[in-house]
Amino acid sequence: MLQTRTASTGREARALIRKGALRHPTSGIAPGYVQTNLAILPMDLAFDFLLFCQRNPKPCPLIEVLEPGQFEPRSSAPGADIRTDVPRYRIYRHGKLEAEVEDLKAVWRDDLVTFLIGCSFSFEQALLNNGIELPYWGTDQNVAMFKTSIATTPAGKFGGPMVVSMRWIPREKVVRAVQATSRFPAVHGAPVHIGDPEAIGIRDVGKPDYGRAWPSKAGDVPVFWACGVTPQAVATASKPALMITHAPGHMFVTDLKDEDVAAL
Amino acid sequence: MLQTRTASTGREARALIRKGALRHPTSGIAPGYVQTNLAILPMDLAFDFLLFCQRNPKPCPLIEVLEPGQFEPRSSAPGADIRTDVPRYRIYRHGKLEAEVEDLKAVWRDDLVTFLIGCSFSFEQALLNNGIELPYWGTDQNVAMFKTSIATTPAGKFGGPMVVSMRWIPREKVVRAVQATSRFPAVHGAPVHIGDPEAIGIRDVGKPDYGRAWPSKAGDVPVFWACGVTPQAVATASKPALMITHAPGHMFVTDLKDEDVAAL
Repeated sequence: MLQTRTASTGREARALIRKGALRHPTSGIAPGYVQTNLAILPMDLAFDFLLFCQRNPKPCPLIEVLEPGQFEPRSSAPGADIRTDVPRYRIYRHGKLEAEVEDLKAVWRDDLVTFLIGCSFSFEQALLNNGIELPYWGTDQNVAMFKTSIATTPAGKFGGPMVVSMRWIPREKVVRAVQATSRFPAVHGAPVHIGDPEAIGIRDVGKPDYGRAWPSKAGDVPVFWACGVTPQAVATASKPALMITHAPGHMFVTDLKDEDVAAL
Repeated sequence: MLQTRTASTGREARALIRKGALRHPTSGIAPGYVQTNLAILPMDLAFDFLLFCQRNPKPCPLIEVLEPGQFEPRSSAPGADIRTDVPRYRIYRHGKLEAEVEDLKAVWRDDLVTFLIGCSFSFEQALLNNGIELPYWGTDQNVAMFKTSIATTPAGKFGGPMVVSMRWIPREKVVRAVQATSRFPAVHGAPVHIGDPEAIGIRDVGKPDYGRAWPSKAGDVPVFWACGVTPQAVATASKPALMITHAPGHMFVTDLKDEDVAAL
């Protein structure tokens, strides 16, 4: 089907996705609307995972959690269907990627619990608004991400290291970057670390564990934010019988505007 | 046992409570330390209740949730024992108050999940710090509280009206009251309403549903905050086979300082 790369609202983006006209990464789609990571788990793991997110709000900020079997995010995207409105899904069984699919109709079950977890697009917009350049913005390539020595607070079966994203920030903009992202705790919020990568267990900022490295300029400081890859890595490590996620970069687009999730 | 009314830290308060030397309301005990509401429910209701709190963060701000059977709040009060460190408990069965007890040793079970929910003491300190008088502060009497026409967002078996606390604020301090309490989302945060009580279903501010009415001065504006009585009212209404709470005013005192739970 003919593919489009623009939508003016979350609702419009989801309508295009549902009819198969938008199957690519959602970065830059429906600017100003909050996009989310997706994690779907069976009910027998849902309490532990919800507790994990509650205990680790920086890597796992919850935008909405649906009740077992429910597929309409009534709070963040009324009328949406989580089974059809994400451009691409990944299905994991016992921690192994089994398939990438374009809808969940064949695998949906009444005991599945959907978690919508904030993604960094909203706070990156806040950085851009404050004159901070993000070289990967609007490209199909991703920010640099690293496993760290920062432990998450475990809950039941779930636990493991925090994954962070790293951005080079000009020295004179570091304070502004903290302020701008502090306004958005629902999408990872303030940095978890500023400066020396080794202090959080990162040996080589040139070799990210996910995404790719980006060049720095003189005077740039590495600044690290908790990353939405964390819950996915933690969930996969616990090897659940079934877990469904979005495919990387293929997010769920809500009806919420960035300002709706701003703290102050 | 000889009763004391002072403690300099949360740990000291809990030690006094555990040995029976502090069985009265905890207002003013361990100033500057975060106190919490207590709700304990069996595991079969825990996911729904956790989801209810996640969906209603203003009336139900979670300070910590313990895993089934766990009685040590490792994050907010390491070394504490939730079965002995609250001055007075209430035991409800099928929504009816069965007993008030001084410890939970006889009723504790491995499937019980403990919820520690922020209470207003921390943000009231912020109001006082900003020169706003609270006539009930330091007395054994309580703020005025009302059931409203504001619906909570339901989750599973849990739902119902939001309960709010009301404080008279001098007109010239209303903006400051919003700012000061906005810093503390973990203890109910910013007001839910300013002014006209009827707009949120309150017919007579002189007749609160809980606590007592306090006189106003010329120029005072009624300001309403989400209240921790909400989760207790909502849980009781669902008539769980077993629910345990603190007795009114007899809170759990954590090791967290007010600034630890400030947003910015």
